[in-house]
Amino acid sequence: MPEPTTGLPVVGMVGAGQLARMTHQAAIALGLSLRILADSPTDGAALIAPDVEIGAADDLEALQRFSKGCDVITFDHEHVPGEHLRALEAAGVAVRPGPDALLFAQDKRAMRQRLGDLGLPMPHWTDDLQALSRPFVAKAVTGGYDGRGVWVVEDGDALPEIDLIGEELVAIERELAVQVARSPSGELRTWPVVETVQRNGICVEVIAPAPSLDPVTAAAARDIAETVATELGVVGVLAVELFETSGGLLINELAMRPHNSGHWSIEGSTTSQFTQHLRAVLDWPLGETAPVAPVTVMANLLGGSSTDLTVNLPRALGGAPDVAVHLYGKSSRPGRKIGHVTALGDDVERVRARAHRAIEALRGPA
Amino acid sequence: MPEPTTGLPVVGMVGAGQLARMTHQAAIALGLSLRILADSPTDGAALIAPDVEIGAADDLEALQRFSKGCDVITFDHEHVPGEHLRALEAAGVAVRPGPDALLFAQDKRAMRQRLGDLGLPMPHWTDDLQALSRPFVAKAVTGGYDGRGVWVVEDGDALPEIDLIGEELVAIERELAVQVARSPSGELRTWPVVETVQRNGICVEVIAPAPSLDPVTAAAARDIAETVATELGVVGVLAVELFETSGGLLINELAMRPHNSGHWSIEGSTTSQFTQHLRAVLDWPLGETAPVAPVTVMANLLGGSSTDLTVNLPRALGGAPDVAVHLYGKSSRPGRKIGHVTALGDDVERVRARAHRAIEALRGPA
Repeated sequence: MPEPTTGLPVVGMVGAGQLARMTHQAAIALGLSLRILADSPTDGAALIAPDVEIGAADDLEALQRFSKGCDVITFDHEHVPGEHLRALEAAGVAVRPGPDALLFAQDKRAMRQRLGDLGLPMPHWTDDLQALSRPFVAKAVTGGYDGRGVWVVEDGDALPEIDLIGEELVAIERELAVQVARSPSGELRTWPVVETVQRNGICVEVIAPAPSLDPVTAAAARDIAETVATELGVVGVLAVELFETSGGLLINELAMRPHNSGHWSIEGSTTSQFTQHLRAVLDWPLGETAPVAPVTVMANLLGGSSTDLTVNLPRALGGAPDVAVHLYGKSSRPGRKIGHVTALGDDVERVRARAHRAIEALRGPA
Repeated sequence: MPEPTTGLPVVGMVGAGQLARMTHQAAIALGLSLRILADSPTDGAALIAPDVEIGAADDLEALQRFSKGCDVITFDHEHVPGEHLRALEAAGVAVRPGPDALLFAQDKRAMRQRLGDLGLPMPHWTDDLQALSRPFVAKAVTGGYDGRGVWVVEDGDALPEIDLIGEELVAIERELAVQVARSPSGELRTWPVVETVQRNGICVEVIAPAPSLDPVTAAAARDIAETVATELGVVGVLAVELFETSGGLLINELAMRPHNSGHWSIEGSTTSQFTQHLRAVLDWPLGETAPVAPVTVMANLLGGSSTDLTVNLPRALGGAPDVAVHLYGKSSRPGRKIGHVTALGDDVERVRARAHRAIEALRGPA
């Protein structure tokens, strides 16, 4: 690998999905270039960055080989064993967020226990699934994402034979998310609270800021995120997914990395979540998180049965002239997130309509 | 090199400076990855992209080797001999913009003659420098950029011994620029006219749109750019630098690639010049060019005698929280463009002040 002439630090990214791709874009603007640990040379981020190590995120030797060239390592996903991260730390590698924080994004039982200790609001939960009246929500303790690992358990349903926790089925008015970045020196910057629209457990749309959110609830959401970031010692970007209910906010999930609910910030905020994550893990001063337009809508492009962007893209772009398009360099599978679009403007419904029109064009005829 | 799984086209970028870096960022969002011809593995864009061929842009063999892996080639700079590009075209390589158009961005005499034939407004010019009353402007016919290759010739000054044209010294009210993208199928998209602020012949600031520009002049500027793009057969982004004078607009220079006067569009427009350039050279539908905020200010970061971003950057970013920062991965030399910042907002003077404060912070103490 060529040495950068500037002598700036090397950030290692464990995992090579779309978050790593977008972080590499942000790294370029900061004069940096990511070092990436990829499962395969055809992973999305491995296709677009020069310094790629091939290896599995749960293979300690691969992690050690990879870390040698890095000043700090961070993550595209949560699937890295804590004991490996502790071994790297013991060898002097800066791991951000560290394993003690990351645990709470990896293990839903540990997360629920810790949030409970902090007195933060969340759905009633238990290890004793038999004690819950049906329907309730069963969640895999580890390994879930994008709606996988979460089941609504009805009368007569059998439970999967894995480690589960159970949660009450909450009457949700809508789902919100709030992101905060925290640096090792404790600086915090929080983005506006957003609304996330889910379909089949997958986020399909994010509206920033959340429309008609009352200021008290917005402040409560930001306060929850900042408390979690500080108390759990998070470094980097933390996303807190929330349920808005008639009784107030409840914490649904945590992610300790750039998150789908923050993609709007690439075009929609002074500082994007990807830029901010890099600044935070490097302990550089954080940037402002104000929105640049009254409304930003991000809509996910999910692979459909007929989505073949190789063929469709040139024509499809003609139906998406007024949005920013982000494609992830992934082959299409039904339901797989293969890209997103972002529209900025003044009027929520008009901006949503532009984003949806673009998604329809990119998905192509059904 | 790994094959992208999407089967999307490969765009080759001749040259590996900051334009290639920012084009690579744009390529990632389109699911693409640039193939780059770099003079050296430490060139800015060679540090951040995986598919880099080392070779000189005026070496036909290097161009041939490089072009083999490309569906289309385009340019970071103008310094590629037209005969080499014709040889590549004869071998079936799609060269965009093509050599017949590019000539007018490479050779100022050819440019002036052609614009004259089209009846477009420009300063009075001549090959016969002795016929001009001093002071006048002497320009190197080829090879100039960033104020190099341009001299104001006063009484008693000797002329450089190179091929020159002479131009009248125009009484400039201010400098403007307008960018247009054109695709091979003839689609045109024009950005708002911007004001460019120069110091010692180097652009230091761009204000988009140009403040207080009367609509008739704005329409005339856009019309000039669209006429040049169409009549010269430009493909990709064309930048037309203009003098605003009491007698109207005069064309100063042309560039047939993304240009410093268009960097504001990364954050400031629905479609950035880099994304648009890729869409145009691929003959994909173009994106909208509307501004996303009332005012966008881009300010260049020029290397100073004490600018050492390796040391300064972390602290400096603390003085630049409210702008987007773009660094080019270049070592600092006095006067060298090593980055830029972009600020968005509502009020021209306040947005300018934010951009300038950020530049001062990044330059560090004098």
